[in-house]
Amino acid sequence: MKAWLIAEDSDQKSPKMQLAETETPTPGPGEVRVRVSSVGINRADLLQVQGLYPAPPGFDPRIPGLEYAGVVDAVGDKVLGHQVGDSVMGLVPGAAYAEYIVTTERELIGIPEGIDAADAAALPEDFLTAYRALFIEGGLQAGEWAMVRPVTSGVGMAAAQLIRAAGARVVGTSRSRERLDQAKALGLELDLDAIDGEDGVAEAVTGATGGINVAVEMVAGDRLNDTIATLRTEGRAIIVGLMGGRKGEINLGALLMGRRGIKAMTMRAQPLEERIRVAQVFNNRLAAMFTSGRLRPCISRRFAFDDAVSAHKAMAANEHLGKIILTL
Amino acid sequence: MKAWLIAEDSDQKSPKMQLAETETPTPGPGEVRVRVSSVGINRADLLQVQGLYPAPPGFDPRIPGLEYAGVVDAVGDKVLGHQVGDSVMGLVPGAAYAEYIVTTERELIGIPEGIDAADAAALPEDFLTAYRALFIEGGLQAGEWAMVRPVTSGVGMAAAQLIRAAGARVVGTSRSRERLDQAKALGLELDLDAIDGEDGVAEAVTGATGGINVAVEMVAGDRLNDTIATLRTEGRAIIVGLMGGRKGEINLGALLMGRRGIKAMTMRAQPLEERIRVAQVFNNRLAAMFTSGRLRPCISRRFAFDDAVSAHKAMAANEHLGKIILTL
Repeated sequence: MKAWLIAEDSDQKSPKMQLAETETPTPGPGEVRVRVSSVGINRADLLQVQGLYPAPPGFDPRIPGLEYAGVVDAVGDKVLGHQVGDSVMGLVPGAAYAEYIVTTERELIGIPEGIDAADAAALPEDFLTAYRALFIEGGLQAGEWAMVRPVTSGVGMAAAQLIRAAGARVVGTSRSRERLDQAKALGLELDLDAIDGEDGVAEAVTGATGGINVAVEMVAGDRLNDTIATLRTEGRAIIVGLMGGRKGEINLGALLMGRRGIKAMTMRAQPLEERIRVAQVFNNRLAAMFTSGRLRPCISRRFAFDDAVSAHKAMAANEHLGKIILTL
Repeated sequence: MKAWLIAEDSDQKSPKMQLAETETPTPGPGEVRVRVSSVGINRADLLQVQGLYPAPPGFDPRIPGLEYAGVVDAVGDKVLGHQVGDSVMGLVPGAAYAEYIVTTERELIGIPEGIDAADAAALPEDFLTAYRALFIEGGLQAGEWAMVRPVTSGVGMAAAQLIRAAGARVVGTSRSRERLDQAKALGLELDLDAIDGEDGVAEAVTGATGGINVAVEMVAGDRLNDTIATLRTEGRAIIVGLMGGRKGEINLGALLMGRRGIKAMTMRAQPLEERIRVAQVFNNRLAAMFTSGRLRPCISRRFAFDDAVSAHKAMAANEHLGKIILTL
C-alpha cells in the first residue's frame, strides 16, 4: 500500500515525509482492516514529523495520522459486529496517513447517517477531544458556562457545538474579531469582549457570566492565568493544547482561594479501553446529533492524499478555520 | 465573654491581638452555643492576624480561630439532635478564639468516645482537610499510593494515618531525617529517599512506587514541579497549602503528557452545606476509627487560652511536630 513515511533524518528544522510503498497490514483476532477514503490533519501530526511527538509503543512510528474514515475491507477472527463494506471512521494513536489501517473492532465508529463519507474524517479527533474535555474531565452540566480558548480551532468549534447541544452556554476567545464572527454561527453566546491577548478579557468574561464552570484551554503558557481568573469557585480548566507555551508562571494563590482545578489530557496515548470508551460515546450519543443536524463538521480545506505536504503547510500557516482533510 | 481580638492596626510587620471582653453570642434557630474548652491553632490564624487571610463574610473578622471543642451551653429554636451538656467539636470559618461560639447544629461533630475533650480541638481541621484532599478531591482508593508533602505537618500526619486506614500506601517528605523518623510511627511505608529539597526526590519516589496516584501538597511554588514529576498517568496533586510560594513556573508539558491534574482547596471559605458534609463525614466514618485507636490525635504542645500569643510564636518558630492547642 501507499503511505506517508517520516524520513529518518526529519527534525524540527527540516521536517520531511515521503510517499512510499509499504506492507499492507493484516487484521488479527478482533481486528478489522479499513480501506481509507479520508484522513483528518491534526497539529500533532506536524509535531510528529518534527520528531517532537513520537507514536506510543505498539504503533508504527514512521506513519503519522490520528483519524480516518473509510470502508471495512477485511475482518480478522472473532470480529462480531462488522463486515466487509461497512462505512466506518475512527481515532487511532497513529498510522492513518495510509491507504489501509488495521484497528480493533470496538474502536470503530459508524459514520452517522447524513454525513458524507468524505467529510467523516473531520469528526473523530475534534469532537471526541472536545467531548472528553467538557463532559468526562470537566463535568459540564446544562445551564453552566464553558469557555473555549480559542474557539476558532477545530476542537474549539466542535466544543462550541457540543456545549450548546448540552444546554450549556459558551464564551469563545480568538485572536481576531473576523474569526470570532465566523465561529459565531456555531452558537457563541458571548463573544464581544473575548478577543484573546487583549487586557481585561478575564474581567469582561466574569462580569458577563459570573464565572466559568469549565474552560477548554489550548493556549496555556503564562496566559493560563487569564483563564484561571475567569473560573468561578470550584471551576476547572482542562488543558488540551499548549500553543502558548509548555511552561507558565502560574498564580497558585488564585487557584487556592477559588478552590479551582487544572487537568491536562491528551487523546493519543490512551490505553485501548479508554479509546473504546470514547468511540462508544460517539456511537451512542453523538452520531444521532449529526444525523439530526445539531452537530456538523467544519471543513476548511481538502487536499489530495498525495499532496499531504501542502496540507501540512496550510495547517502551519494557521489561516484555516476548521478541519483540513486528505482525500484518497 | 473573653475573646482574642485582632488589633485594628495589626499587619504583616507587626501582628497584634489582645484578650478583651466582647459580647457573648446568642444562638438563633437551628444554632447552638458551645462553651469552648480547647482551641486548635492553625497557620491560617497567624495569617489572619497579619491581615493576609480575612474571615469570610458573615463571621466576626476580629476573632481568629477555626476549630474548637467544648460543651453545648444553650440551644436555639428548631435544634433537634443536641442538648445542653453534649460534648462536641467543630470546624468553623472563624471566631473560635473565644469562651463561647455559636454554630449551626448540623456542623457539630460529636467527640469520639475514648478521646479526651481537652485533645479534641486537635482533630477537626487536620483530619477533615486531609480527608477532603485524599478522598473527596483526590479519589484515593485502597491499594493506591499517596504522597504527603510535608508529612510532618499537622495535616500531613493526619493524612498518613487516613491513607493507611483506607488500605492505601504513603510516601512522606520532610525537611529532616529526624522529623521523618518521628512521623514514621504513623505508618510511613517509604520515607528513605523522600527528604524534601534534595535533588532526585521525584526519581526516588517514582522508582519505588511506580508513580503516585494522589499527592497532598502543602509546599507548592516552583517545587510543585517535583510533585508533578512523581505522579503517575492521571495522577493528581491536591494543593492545600502554599508554604513554598504563591506563584510557580509550572511544567505544563509534563502535566499534559501524563494527563495529570492539579486541584486546589481550602476548608475555610466553604458554604454551609459543604461544612456540614465534612462534619457528617467525621460523625459517620472517622469517629469510630478514633475510638478503635486506628486514628489518633498528634498533639505537640498545649498553652493556656490567655497565652495565645506564645502559642502563635511557637507555631511561627516551626519546630513543633503535631498540633498546638489552647486550653480554657
